[in-house]
Amino acid sequence: MTAHRRAFLRLLALGSGALAACRQKAAETAAKLPSLLGAPVSTYGERSPFVKATRQFAETTRTPEQASSLTPLADTYGIITPSSLHFERHHSGVPAIDPAAHRLLIHGLVERPLVFTVEELKRLPSTSRIHFLECSGNSGTGWRPTPRPTVQAAHGLTSCSEWTGVKLSLLLDEVGVKRDAAWMLAEGADPGKMTRSIPIAKAMDDATVVYAQNGEPLRPEQGFPLRLLLPGWEGNSNVKWLRRLKLVDQPYMTREETSKYTDLMPDGSARQFTFTMDAKSVVTHPSGGQQLAGPGFHEISGLAWSGRGKVARVEVSTDGGATWHDAVLQEPVLPIAHTRFRFAWDWDGTEAIVASRVTDETGYVQPTRAELVAVRGVNSQYHNNMIQAWRVKADGTVDYAVL
Amino acid sequence: MTAHRRAFLRLLALGSGALAACRQKAAETAAKLPSLLGAPVSTYGERSPFVKATRQFAETTRTPEQASSLTPLADTYGIITPSSLHFERHHSGVPAIDPAAHRLLIHGLVERPLVFTVEELKRLPSTSRIHFLECSGNSGTGWRPTPRPTVQAAHGLTSCSEWTGVKLSLLLDEVGVKRDAAWMLAEGADPGKMTRSIPIAKAMDDATVVYAQNGEPLRPEQGFPLRLLLPGWEGNSNVKWLRRLKLVDQPYMTREETSKYTDLMPDGSARQFTFTMDAKSVVTHPSGGQQLAGPGFHEISGLAWSGRGKVARVEVSTDGGATWHDAVLQEPVLPIAHTRFRFAWDWDGTEAIVASRVTDETGYVQPTRAELVAVRGVNSQYHNNMIQAWRVKADGTVDYAVL
Repeated sequence: MTAHRRAFLRLLALGSGALAACRQKAAETAAKLPSLLGAPVSTYGERSPFVKATRQFAETTRTPEQASSLTPLADTYGIITPSSLHFERHHSGVPAIDPAAHRLLIHGLVERPLVFTVEELKRLPSTSRIHFLECSGNSGTGWRPTPRPTVQAAHGLTSCSEWTGVKLSLLLDEVGVKRDAAWMLAEGADPGKMTRSIPIAKAMDDATVVYAQNGEPLRPEQGFPLRLLLPGWEGNSNVKWLRRLKLVDQPYMTREETSKYTDLMPDGSARQFTFTMDAKSVVTHPSGGQQLAGPGFHEISGLAWSGRGKVARVEVSTDGGATWHDAVLQEPVLPIAHTRFRFAWDWDGTEAIVASRVTDETGYVQPTRAELVAVRGVNSQYHNNMIQAWRVKADGTVDYAVL
Repeated sequence: MTAHRRAFLRLLALGSGALAACRQKAAETAAKLPSLLGAPVSTYGERSPFVKATRQFAETTRTPEQASSLTPLADTYGIITPSSLHFERHHSGVPAIDPAAHRLLIHGLVERPLVFTVEELKRLPSTSRIHFLECSGNSGTGWRPTPRPTVQAAHGLTSCSEWTGVKLSLLLDEVGVKRDAAWMLAEGADPGKMTRSIPIAKAMDDATVVYAQNGEPLRPEQGFPLRLLLPGWEGNSNVKWLRRLKLVDQPYMTREETSKYTDLMPDGSARQFTFTMDAKSVVTHPSGGQQLAGPGFHEISGLAWSGRGKVARVEVSTDGGATWHDAVLQEPVLPIAHTRFRFAWDWDGTEAIVASRVTDETGYVQPTRAELVAVRGVNSQYHNNMIQAWRVKADGTVDYAVL
């Protein structure tokens, strides 16, 4: 570390007079050691009672079985989302499924319809991948005049996990897909039978039938015991509690791809089957609702991701987009995964507009709201990936801003 | 996928007659859909009640506050260990620490002794890394004539997490380390004041003061709110509930580095400060206590890691070490991290001895027990990284074997 950087951190992180204060704290510390034995080893650990971060319910939640809950992005670290805090979106609640009774049927335009038990799938060649999963409605209030006030409320419908399962292409090879099969209907075992039509090309590419998440079996909210994982595609198409795949010659036009999950354009037409999640980034610190302690050193940190591959670059602005500076990307930078970025900021204590802008490996650059609206209008609910800004006021409070 | 491989999987994974059985299962499936709404969204998720894997206590546990618990490696997936199943090793139990009251003191041979609060540390530049952490006593019963029967009992004192914190070198720059500081005493806030002496070179290299694990604050069993992370070094030196770092001119010769955590050699001398964990691998499936359903396709899967960097190669033998074959390494292969390997095995139903052998990026090759004992004798308790074998009997049961 250079002398310049040392001085920068010392002065700004600890503040003037901090050294004396630190010496005083030393005296207080000595007396605080516990004297009794702590807790014993345990079979399955829990977080500290001092840790309080929780999934927040979307403000529209009236029927909590048909609702979403949001990951507290401002209170997470690194790239892995704790499974207990992975966002949720359910259309008819979380079914309680006995994995021994669960089956996956693959039928339709196939040579040999087959039904697999979970144990049979676990016997097959497996694969593990770290991927984000994002609801296409994430940050959708960016389309509306009333923004959401925190990063959890605005962007909490994205999470990132290590997923383990069996490549769907292997199962499709087993059943023998007929030549006229162009789509696949995927159906969940929730009471609402969530269904989506998936193009066969994706099914044969990187689609995976997953049974594990972050080292343990899938959580119930994420589809235990089986879910479809379509890397980089909108969350809704990654059908949970997966029970059936039917090979068909055209899309089924289910409720979830007609009345929902389409993008209404300014001319009244609707884009349909807009599966891939475009590149997006968001600053999680400082972000709406936080309070900065005062001027000096602050690390600007956030997450960036792209449904099309790796994050290539993240830029940060602290002056409302007038100038942009490269952030540091935390290794490993993995394809179709949350990527943590960091930027060292010396805040002078005056009002600042902080924002991030991602470029993915295809060269796609995250747009401003104006750029996005110029193409898509303001009738959409889904697929809003505009640059998100936060206003840091002189008193250290942070709220929403639009570039 | 080649036609050959298709045939291999179809025949062996499903077995003769399986197609008819699968068609029959299809009829059963239709009636099983739930008809009532499932559970609502929730603030903090839990695993399914059907998932039962737990940390197992070491068989020597009489005082559960001074004990260890083992990760169920045979029931984990990918490379991330769920935080709730991360192995434990406590010397005086898990203290319940209020993070607002916790302090880290850095003093001794420094220009400016400082005390940091947890919040102050979180304000500083941060880093996230995926690293394994392994107790040096892991697989230590390999030194004894009586092997442990399962991979959890034998190898469960290793786990892998994404850790987030602040580089210790940055803090040491802040306090100004004096020229004669050669070691650092690290002390925990547990009632037993666990202490270890750490060479200054490691402290200035990749040592990190971590406050988060797998996306959320450290778990209490892993040192909440602060622990020292020394990538690749024996678990015990990664002091938990870190409260004090004292820069000194020589090691302190604490209990944990004299009466324990030394390696007794055949000539009666003891190796001390053997910090780095050598490369090790173990097959987790099939492993002791498991039951294979029958001949046919089985994926041999396991974990490999090295305290010296990346895993370069893992070889698998199914004939007791007579022949070895390259396993596939699951990406990403990260330095000083668990690396998942997989090997497609067509089991003919006769007794087989299955084993794995890792080579790390330094060229170091995991030894057999005989090779290890030739150098180290059999007086040690720690740092046994011998090749682990499992015997698959003709009836499909699996137990321990020694190459």
